[in-house]
Amino acid sequence: MGLIYGKNPVIEAISSGKTINKIYVAKGSKDVYDIIKMAKDKRIVVVESDKQKLDKMIEHKNSQGIVASVTDYEYYTIQDILDYAKQKNEPPFVIILDKIEDPHNLGAIIRSAECMGVHGIIIQKRNACQITDTVEKVAAGATSFVRVARVTNITESIKMLKENGLWIYGLDMEGASNIYDTKFDGAIGIVVGNEGDGISRLVRENCDFMVKIPMTGKINSLNASVSTAISIYEVVRQKNKNYPFNG
Amino acid sequence: MGLIYGKNPVIEAISSGKTINKIYVAKGSKDVYDIIKMAKDKRIVVVESDKQKLDKMIEHKNSQGIVASVTDYEYYTIQDILDYAKQKNEPPFVIILDKIEDPHNLGAIIRSAECMGVHGIIIQKRNACQITDTVEKVAAGATSFVRVARVTNITESIKMLKENGLWIYGLDMEGASNIYDTKFDGAIGIVVGNEGDGISRLVRENCDFMVKIPMTGKINSLNASVSTAISIYEVVRQKNKNYPFNG
Repeated sequence: MGLIYGKNPVIEAISSGKTINKIYVAKGSKDVYDIIKMAKDKRIVVVESDKQKLDKMIEHKNSQGIVASVTDYEYYTIQDILDYAKQKNEPPFVIILDKIEDPHNLGAIIRSAECMGVHGIIIQKRNACQITDTVEKVAAGATSFVRVARVTNITESIKMLKENGLWIYGLDMEGASNIYDTKFDGAIGIVVGNEGDGISRLVRENCDFMVKIPMTGKINSLNASVSTAISIYEVVRQKNKNYPFNG
Repeated sequence: MGLIYGKNPVIEAISSGKTINKIYVAKGSKDVYDIIKMAKDKRIVVVESDKQKLDKMIEHKNSQGIVASVTDYEYYTIQDILDYAKQKNEPPFVIILDKIEDPHNLGAIIRSAECMGVHGIIIQKRNACQITDTVEKVAAGATSFVRVARVTNITESIKMLKENGLWIYGLDMEGASNIYDTKFDGAIGIVVGNEGDGISRLVRENCDFMVKIPMTGKINSLNASVSTAISIYEVVRQKNKNYPFNG
């Protein structure tokens, strides 16, 4: 069982049709009347609770006076992601995370992926951040809409994606070409590596291309969620430039 | 006085020549020998301390066994930022933050700005996040290299930038054109609004153009640090395409 907290994440969870067991509202909470009404319209049980109890439930993070208990995130399969792209009649666009550890990064990546039309994200079962309450909170509701598949072996997943016609691009500071000099066309998978160690050797060897984001500073390492977002943007930019549908 | 903690941020602080009062190392810390040597070479006082004391100092965040006490961030002026661009013989590229509140966002923006060659950032003195310990930590050392100016009135600052030949672009979901359809050329200022409320009315009225990042999802709101990074990237992409100097 997972907990979602904060007004907007709870609203997103209700409106997305996620299975909500119960909603807890702190006594004296402001501006939650509309949320309660929404929940009651959907026949979700709403209970009033002590602010202290609520705070304790989510380890003293900021609940904004509202917490929803939901069934755990249900992971998809890679096939689900490919089917979804097919259903939308779009070439698949997938993000593959090679051991992202920080829940803030995973949450931010899910949020950016949702906003910019990625079909799904692949994460590893071990040694990697899973979809936790913190991830759901940082994703600002996007976990309700993004298909995340959880796999045992990233290399095997990449092979499967390649068999399905995807080109696999690894994102790395030492990449051979800048992303804006790379033609992203058709079915695409972008691999993002661990915050400290980058992409692991075996995964790297299975990428079709290694690409980089141009950097000119002294630090020379963008945050993993930022570099993922920039590469998603670059793919979208190239697609929209070819097939303008977005104003 | 501020505190910097964690191995990489402390290394960055030492190598950037920041004024460090003292470095505290927890008894039994691993892999800090090189940092201690670096510090001693620069005649910085290094003291051994209890892990508990260290943890308390930084409110139980993860110190990785090392904390540096530094003099507070010294803010720059807008003129400093313009002079720095001139000295580098580049048209000024400035990010203007209209009341960013979250230290994680400010830190992430400073980090992205440093990596991608922004000359400086303007923040507001009131109702906005200042450069705190958390910001320095999230910025991963970039505060040592990025010029941040702190101003009383953002609108006045924008007017001053315009007088200095900058074009001011406001970033907004309702912007008139997509950033990739916008020609970013010459001296540029990008305005990013508050996490919840966006750009305030008066600031908006003083922007030359309102631009947006294309979004296709259901959430339709990128994190502020992500949208800032994407727009910095787009400016860099256009500059490099015109004057390739970056491989």
